[in-house]
Amino acid sequence: MQNEQLLQKINSPADLKMLTLDEMKLLAGEIRQLIIDVVSKNGGHLAPNLGVVELTLALHKVFTTPKDKIIWDVGHQSYIHKILTGRKDQFPTLRQYKGLSGFPKRKESEHDAFGTGHSSTSISAALGMAVARDLKGEDNNVIAVIGDGSMTGGMSFEALNNAGDLHKKMIVILNDNEMSISKNVGAMSQYLCDLRTGETYNKIKHDVEGWLKSLDFGTDVLNAIERVKGSVKYLMVPSSVFEELGFKYLGPIDGHDLNKLLEVLEAAKHVDGPVLVHVITKKGKGYEPAEKSPNKFHGTGPFEIATGKKITDPQAPIAYTEMFGKTLVELAEQDADIVAITAAMPDGTGLNKFAECYPQRFLDVGIAEQHAVTAAAGMAAAGMKPVVAVYSTFLQRAYDSVLHDICMQDLHVTMCLDRAGIVGDDGFTHHGVFDYAYLRSMPRMTIMAPKDENELRQMLNTALQFNGPIAIRYPRGSGIGVDCEDELKELPIGKGELLREGTDVCLLAIGSMVQTALRTADALAANGIQAGVINLRFAKPLDEELIVQAAEKYGKLVTLEEGVLAGGVGSAVLELLNKAGLMQKVQVLNLGLPDEFVPHGDKKYLFRDLGLDTESIKEKITALVKGAGEAK
Amino acid sequence: MQNEQLLQKINSPADLKMLTLDEMKLLAGEIRQLIIDVVSKNGGHLAPNLGVVELTLALHKVFTTPKDKIIWDVGHQSYIHKILTGRKDQFPTLRQYKGLSGFPKRKESEHDAFGTGHSSTSISAALGMAVARDLKGEDNNVIAVIGDGSMTGGMSFEALNNAGDLHKKMIVILNDNEMSISKNVGAMSQYLCDLRTGETYNKIKHDVEGWLKSLDFGTDVLNAIERVKGSVKYLMVPSSVFEELGFKYLGPIDGHDLNKLLEVLEAAKHVDGPVLVHVITKKGKGYEPAEKSPNKFHGTGPFEIATGKKITDPQAPIAYTEMFGKTLVELAEQDADIVAITAAMPDGTGLNKFAECYPQRFLDVGIAEQHAVTAAAGMAAAGMKPVVAVYSTFLQRAYDSVLHDICMQDLHVTMCLDRAGIVGDDGFTHHGVFDYAYLRSMPRMTIMAPKDENELRQMLNTALQFNGPIAIRYPRGSGIGVDCEDELKELPIGKGELLREGTDVCLLAIGSMVQTALRTADALAANGIQAGVINLRFAKPLDEELIVQAAEKYGKLVTLEEGVLAGGVGSAVLELLNKAGLMQKVQVLNLGLPDEFVPHGDKKYLFRDLGLDTESIKEKITALVKGAGEAK
Repeated sequence: MQNEQLLQKINSPADLKMLTLDEMKLLAGEIRQLIIDVVSKNGGHLAPNLGVVELTLALHKVFTTPKDKIIWDVGHQSYIHKILTGRKDQFPTLRQYKGLSGFPKRKESEHDAFGTGHSSTSISAALGMAVARDLKGEDNNVIAVIGDGSMTGGMSFEALNNAGDLHKKMIVILNDNEMSISKNVGAMSQYLCDLRTGETYNKIKHDVEGWLKSLDFGTDVLNAIERVKGSVKYLMVPSSVFEELGFKYLGPIDGHDLNKLLEVLEAAKHVDGPVLVHVITKKGKGYEPAEKSPNKFHGTGPFEIATGKKITDPQAPIAYTEMFGKTLVELAEQDADIVAITAAMPDGTGLNKFAECYPQRFLDVGIAEQHAVTAAAGMAAAGMKPVVAVYSTFLQRAYDSVLHDICMQDLHVTMCLDRAGIVGDDGFTHHGVFDYAYLRSMPRMTIMAPKDENELRQMLNTALQFNGPIAIRYPRGSGIGVDCEDELKELPIGKGELLREGTDVCLLAIGSMVQTALRTADALAANGIQAGVINLRFAKPLDEELIVQAAEKYGKLVTLEEGVLAGGVGSAVLELLNKAGLMQKVQVLNLGLPDEFVPHGDKKYLFRDLGLDTESIKEKITALVKGAGEAK
Repeated sequence: MQNEQLLQKINSPADLKMLTLDEMKLLAGEIRQLIIDVVSKNGGHLAPNLGVVELTLALHKVFTTPKDKIIWDVGHQSYIHKILTGRKDQFPTLRQYKGLSGFPKRKESEHDAFGTGHSSTSISAALGMAVARDLKGEDNNVIAVIGDGSMTGGMSFEALNNAGDLHKKMIVILNDNEMSISKNVGAMSQYLCDLRTGETYNKIKHDVEGWLKSLDFGTDVLNAIERVKGSVKYLMVPSSVFEELGFKYLGPIDGHDLNKLLEVLEAAKHVDGPVLVHVITKKGKGYEPAEKSPNKFHGTGPFEIATGKKITDPQAPIAYTEMFGKTLVELAEQDADIVAITAAMPDGTGLNKFAECYPQRFLDVGIAEQHAVTAAAGMAAAGMKPVVAVYSTFLQRAYDSVLHDICMQDLHVTMCLDRAGIVGDDGFTHHGVFDYAYLRSMPRMTIMAPKDENELRQMLNTALQFNGPIAIRYPRGSGIGVDCEDELKELPIGKGELLREGTDVCLLAIGSMVQTALRTADALAANGIQAGVINLRFAKPLDEELIVQAAEKYGKLVTLEEGVLAGGVGSAVLELLNKAGLMQKVQVLNLGLPDEFVPHGDKKYLFRDLGLDTESIKEKITALVKGAGEAK
């Protein structure tokens, strides 16, 4: 049989419905191969997708999108869904500039009922759709597919609590792979384990027959269920937690057994009310290296298919993430009050080493950013020095915890925002570009951003010597390859540094944009324009003295930040200059992200499109210096 | 016995520990009297406090603050705690300017272990403190007191999930009054009801003896428990949901029976791990009008003690809240797609009338703002027109839901932010002053603020005719008494209105500050300064044309907003003028809230202190016009 023979015929879910069970099993293999091929080249979320091949096939066999709505929580497991819904030919462009997104997007396909990217939103969205459906008198199905990791996010509980009460017809598929991104944590995780092993089954008296009778099934479904009942492993028990919350519980079932999946989904389809289907899957299923290290292959860069070996650049400088983790271990050695907290991202945030060295001082709270931040506030109130390591985009989930629990109480919590700025391939939902804006409007907050990996190291030390709410935001990926100072220094709070003297214009850059500013200054010098460069270091408090001096000396300032302009650092500089009564003496050009969401793809192309590459910046500054910038 | 005879002796929790049970019961009565007296004058959270008098007495008898940490979730039920911990003499200043806060504050007393105000933070904070305690080798107790309403907030679940797993010694008191602020909702509520009525007890096989033996109690406690076991009503059962999450469960017990409270808290104190004590209380206990209408007396203004009748100003214009509710009902009559969503605030947000008229189109999701917003996004994706009514300060909890689920998908959800700006007596944690700043940095967002109650009406209509993410923010309290147009109009998006022509300076005001601007213009005119006044109406998109015109005509602009300056509307005006190349031709004065948290108290005094009363503003503008504003 030729490779991709079956897959070639599948141009829409309707084509899938024509296949026999055996053909579907073959198709599963072909899809796995395609995913492994593409992700080995483009990078992406390999293990989560390999885990849901059969589940996705079964969903599209039993349900009919776009009429029925499938909502993929987080959405990084939607590759098979994309392949089956008319996007298999574009699939090789996955996560590439102008290519397919790695997450569901309403604008990409009518089969993507709800865009996702962040965790734990699917049940809420599904419930909203179920309410809308009933009000409109329609009869489509609504299905949320959510991992056991995402279930630890409080919003899932808020939605379950509400859905169980409203009793709308809706299906929640609990995709239980015993993992969030890393090993799953929390009491619920243990509980699910009990369910899987039948412990709960043994604990609770139940009556399958009676419950089945109480459901108003059609004849064929009843027949299907009769068959199913014969299977000893196919449990159908009222499970206390979900049942207590008003859900019917079906499962647990083997998420790689297509036949059983089809049966249970058919049964779920006919339940008149909220039903939770507990499906056990294996992350990385069908690709040995990923089965063995689901963690490493959760989100991966390019790799060698035969060995699973990552294709990396041996010359690449140390990553910011690694520098953070390494320095924190060093600091923790000297200071027993330092504790580290992650929301299900020990590897991604570089805390894995800390966790090994100081297991007692390390806390993985699950995908629960609000709780992570407020628990840190509790620790700080009790005299510890908590460090919360989190991706910039996910700290958005804890906006109020930062404001209400840390800043209002002026507590010393260090927030380390990894993946700040443009993240590239993950794109859209994952860019960390709002942090400057939302953090700087919070009173008592201090915000730093390092120009290189060595400065990150010094900033982390500075933050831990500080006393109050303090954040450091730094980009995804490698540093720039500077030498790392062994000695840990304390940077003066609210002070920038002058990196280059000039005469015509001064560039006020922060974080990742400092290197861009230096390169631009070189390019400008080649054109006879002498640009000064200041590394702001602090987005808050700004170095008022240095900025005022620069304004008075140069008369022309350019701010550079990898964040939204609306309310960002450049905006703060305008506020400062205006308050200082200097606006009439100075021209300011604010460079940063425009008021739109940034798509995914190679950072190089995105920066170019945003006009934030060195060439574009050089042109804009040249225009400013030559006077064109004054024209309205 | 003389009134307050016992209370006079209580200057710290140590004094309480000397009392007999009978004296404590008398003290409970005295405390109730004091609270009713003070709240009848100052307003405040009456019913929640009357419900926890015995519980608080028992807590301070069994535990010893400040060594032991009591964390009051939300914190509006902390009056008794304040009275018992050295603040009874200040209690008559409750919620008044420079007086006692209505919420716990670390800076107010060492007995306030953690500041609260927003819901569902207590278990997280308590867990953080328990972790810190163990790392430091200390032995204090940590107690979170949380209502069944706050338990519906997802963050509580995040914390329970984490705590049950970590198995730290900590106590969660579930203060179950069957209410959040209004009648509690959700499946968990039904579950708690089953617990209360013993249904769960009957459902689950349990072995009290075995469990008791497994605990490592001291002898006196064992004796106490032996006594307790004799009581039929005093159940001590492993309750599935909390037990499944790793907590020991004690209860339910009568929260007004001091004797039982003391026993169960003593038992809880000796559990080596997380324990949940389920206490049943009655909101408003001991004051008949509040017992009958706990909803009305949750948070109340001044009232007549004898009758419970609210002391209101019959001349007061219609409140913004009421205008919102009334108009939404009108609009919903014409448009069956309109649905309304609240997070446990049907009364506070004015949705009660809508709920009566359109129960099927009304959704109270519990204290769960994230879920509220994302469920609304789901409804919008399915073609409905959801209106989320929420206090500005609480929308902070759903920052990422607004950004990630609504804005990124460009969905038509109308967010109505009540209590925006300075809220007065509730203060600090409840001021809604960050919304302009955090919403305007979100792409695709439209933000309006009405100058009066009639404009709110037109803005709501405008929002519902719009298609995309849109927010309206309006203040607490009464409108200004303008005539209300019957006809519903559509305001042009992004267009302000010129209210007054002038020559010397132009005031660009938004929302509540428009009236201030008009009054200031009158006052300036009396001093010979002719100020123009523009009602911006839209914080985003700004009316670029009108602002540029004003800049060119006047050369001097003043922005006025009831929100933080850092990143706020004035900052947006600076960005616009700078981009338009106008900054060198215009002087701008930004008026709004400085970079600090605002305390509680009468709005009049707070505005004066903030320099935002008419007199202060007049002086600043006079200085600007007379040229002093140019000096650095």
